Amino acid sequence: MEQFEKVSIVKKANVYFEGKVTSRTVIFDDNSKKTLGIMLPGDYEFGTAAAELMEILAGEMTVLLPGESEWRTYKTGDTFQVPADSRFKLKVTTIADYCCSYIPG
Amino acid sequence: MEQFEKVSIVKKANVYFEGKVTSRTVIFDDNSKKTLGIMLPGDYEFGTAAAELMEILAGEMTVLLPGESEWRTYKTGDTFQVPADSRFKLKVTTIADYCCSYIPG
Repeated sequence: MEQFEKVSIVKKANVYFEGKVTSRTVIFDDNSKKTLGIMLPGDYEFGTAAAELMEILAGEMTVLLPGESEWRTYKTGDTFQVPADSRFKLKVTTIADYCCSYIPG
Repeated sequence: MEQFEKVSIVKKANVYFEGKVTSRTVIFDDNSKKTLGIMLPGDYEFGTAAAELMEILAGEMTVLLPGESEWRTYKTGDTFQVPADSRFKLKVTTIADYCCSYIPG
């Protein structure tokens, strides 16, 4: 059972798309941040500020990254990276559990 | 922005009711546990092992506690307690963000 240790967690959830996407923010000793989130089935578009490294903890998502013309499917254990200040699209067909790491610029 | 500090958090989510209820487990220095969770609208029934203290962080839920005949509505900032080894029912009409503390017996 993998854990993040000696971290802070923000009590309140981040809620998007009427709750179909929700996450909790985890803050590490070095002030870096990750969110642990759930996406229910649906089509979503997100914008980034910092670059993001997405890790699929369970489930799968099909993703259109900025500048790409091909949708790619990522499954449990896969990761993908999204550049800073960009937008990406997601199609989620089964519930997806994810960890998003924000990469300082 | 209230936080839990110097805690461990289990990376993978707990998923119930096809993802309509999800939570993350937070473990404190004294080994006590809380879960931070989201309930989407729906009707749910849960069983407890340890007694639970539920705090509504956002939204509301209408609850039938064990041995009660009257449903009660709890809103942001409210808490209610559920005895150990019991069952309780919930009706959620708007997305609810909650913190559940497990109370050692």
